[in-house]
Amino acid sequence: MDAVPAPFTSDDYGARMQAAAAAAAEEGLDGLLVTPGPDLLWLTGYQPTATTERLTLLVLRHGVEPHLLVPILERPDAESTVGAEALIMRDWRDGTDPYAAAAQLLPADGTFAISDTAWALHLLGLQAELTESRYSSVTERLPMLRAVKDGRELARMEAAGAAADATFREIVKVPFAGRKETDVAADLARFLREFGHEQVDFTVVGSGPNGANPHHEAGDRTILSGDMVVLDFGGLMYGYGSDTSRTVCVGEPTSQMREVHEIVRVAQQTAFEAVRPGIACQEIDRVARRVITEAGYGDEFIHRTGHGIGMTTHEPPYIVEGEERPVVPGMCFSIEPGIYLAGRFGVRIEDIVTVTEDGGRRFNDTDRGLTIVE
Amino acid sequence: MDAVPAPFTSDDYGARMQAAAAAAAEEGLDGLLVTPGPDLLWLTGYQPTATTERLTLLVLRHGVEPHLLVPILERPDAESTVGAEALIMRDWRDGTDPYAAAAQLLPADGTFAISDTAWALHLLGLQAELTESRYSSVTERLPMLRAVKDGRELARMEAAGAAADATFREIVKVPFAGRKETDVAADLARFLREFGHEQVDFTVVGSGPNGANPHHEAGDRTILSGDMVVLDFGGLMYGYGSDTSRTVCVGEPTSQMREVHEIVRVAQQTAFEAVRPGIACQEIDRVARRVITEAGYGDEFIHRTGHGIGMTTHEPPYIVEGEERPVVPGMCFSIEPGIYLAGRFGVRIEDIVTVTEDGGRRFNDTDRGLTIVE
Repeated sequence: MDAVPAPFTSDDYGARMQAAAAAAAEEGLDGLLVTPGPDLLWLTGYQPTATTERLTLLVLRHGVEPHLLVPILERPDAESTVGAEALIMRDWRDGTDPYAAAAQLLPADGTFAISDTAWALHLLGLQAELTESRYSSVTERLPMLRAVKDGRELARMEAAGAAADATFREIVKVPFAGRKETDVAADLARFLREFGHEQVDFTVVGSGPNGANPHHEAGDRTILSGDMVVLDFGGLMYGYGSDTSRTVCVGEPTSQMREVHEIVRVAQQTAFEAVRPGIACQEIDRVARRVITEAGYGDEFIHRTGHGIGMTTHEPPYIVEGEERPVVPGMCFSIEPGIYLAGRFGVRIEDIVTVTEDGGRRFNDTDRGLTIVE
Repeated sequence: MDAVPAPFTSDDYGARMQAAAAAAAEEGLDGLLVTPGPDLLWLTGYQPTATTERLTLLVLRHGVEPHLLVPILERPDAESTVGAEALIMRDWRDGTDPYAAAAQLLPADGTFAISDTAWALHLLGLQAELTESRYSSVTERLPMLRAVKDGRELARMEAAGAAADATFREIVKVPFAGRKETDVAADLARFLREFGHEQVDFTVVGSGPNGANPHHEAGDRTILSGDMVVLDFGGLMYGYGSDTSRTVCVGEPTSQMREVHEIVRVAQQTAFEAVRPGIACQEIDRVARRVITEAGYGDEFIHRTGHGIGMTTHEPPYIVEGEERPVVPGMCFSIEPGIYLAGRFGVRIEDIVTVTEDGGRRFNDTDRGLTIVE
């Protein structure tokens, strides 16, 4: 994609809100309650400058116009967003009760889905104000609210993936040996921005034993010749996420490094090939896990195979044991098996994949073999 | 303060956790449940690299050792923090139920306070797992958990305030007229870092009519001669917050600008002079509001007078109508009345104040008169 994609319009936001309210009704809910975060941004285009103890709440009810309740001093910001035309705004003032204000928009004994990330403070305020009301999380009741991306969203995801791939192709040219992990991480961040990311969310550089900690970011360890190095990086481009991992070796790998890397590569490839409409999320996890378990490293694959991605890096669908729902065309998620040998090294290979009508398509397509760097 | 303050030790974290558990018991609670965020950081020194859908939960119960439940893949990070020595760590693995794991640490019919910022997803998970349990927010039941700062915390707050003041003294020397708000905001951020802030959280530059929107940050408006400009900036230094506002005029102010600025200055000064141990938070708000209301601008003072500050910019105590609790020595909060004339200009003057044994002490002490800039 060469051009900046056209921004979403108030009609787009209106359609999303209407579809979400309808989905909530179909799920037997009296409404969907959305606090600041990715759901609100997706539904309205509005993101307060900060998420605070002051209640901001979008109320979506089937057959009722969408209402957005905001603190009065944030109203000018909220009104200036594109989606504001597609909803009715209400405000509340410091010193008054925001939950009482919210209650005026809600049936007293309603059953609602509420944003996963809504603060407990706000949920407890609503529960106390409407003692007969009941709540579930959006992920429990409407997990796939944002999971299926439309064509314009997929175009943004594709652009983000291509920029991440361009970043990988550059990073393998920089020197690794003798530099700190944080130096390489800074290079990753710079490349992501150069290739169009407006936000860099993570730049993991896990060298040697640090690579065996899957949530290590980047530290002041000096990378040595002979190290395996896990690179895992991403951010936002046009509001949509990238997230890719490759594991490289600084100089010549040992035979065990080659073996472990190849197991992970096969696991990742096999899981990718399993992607098709209708397959359960957990089945994709099982496919990857089976490869690694049969190779004798099952206990060293200590996380799920993947996570959905879109306006956030982690969102449904989760590719994990127990997630029985099927994937459907337009969903986007990571496939990222790994093996972590404590105290020695780790390997992870990750692509973002979208489900097509007859299989899967990767948004990342750099070399998945073991790349040697200097 | 010239030297970097000594870091907090595992004994410090242990003492905080013990005191918090005791405070919860005194409040009639069976425990305090803390998810990632400022409370967890204050209690344990641990901050996961990201707050995600994976449950991390600190359980504090009087007479029971503190337990921290973490996702297994984040356990190495959690174990590497100073506070880890003062607690017992438990983990859970993807594909298992984290709420069942948490339930093993909790009495089934317990009454708990939970972090304000805990995700609704997690609270709902606990409520579903322990159907007889009951929850309140930390702010409702233990609002003052972190509100009273000890001497070492006050030293950090003082250092942050001094750095913010140094920033103001520099910013009034830069050119305003003809530059964009974002340019001046970038200067503010640079100065805050130069004077020692490790994190810049906000750099509001509200020129002319933008100053009348109290939550405007900084935009691409070009600042003009004759503009009033609200400056409101802060961040973290040694982990503790700064937050100060001054309103300056670019060139000669009109008589109304002078008048409105003077009303706000008197309101701020009068409210500051009211601070003493035992006065209710709302009374400080009333004192500031009375000055502005009597001057005829009550409807244009559209927010509370202040908010507590510490490891976060907004925390209890809130200086707002309805907050009847008294302030006590060691509490820190802002006093920041303002007047906002829609479409024209705004004025806000803000200092961080701490309560002493016999009154209040400001951490900000730059000129509160109307400073003229170029």
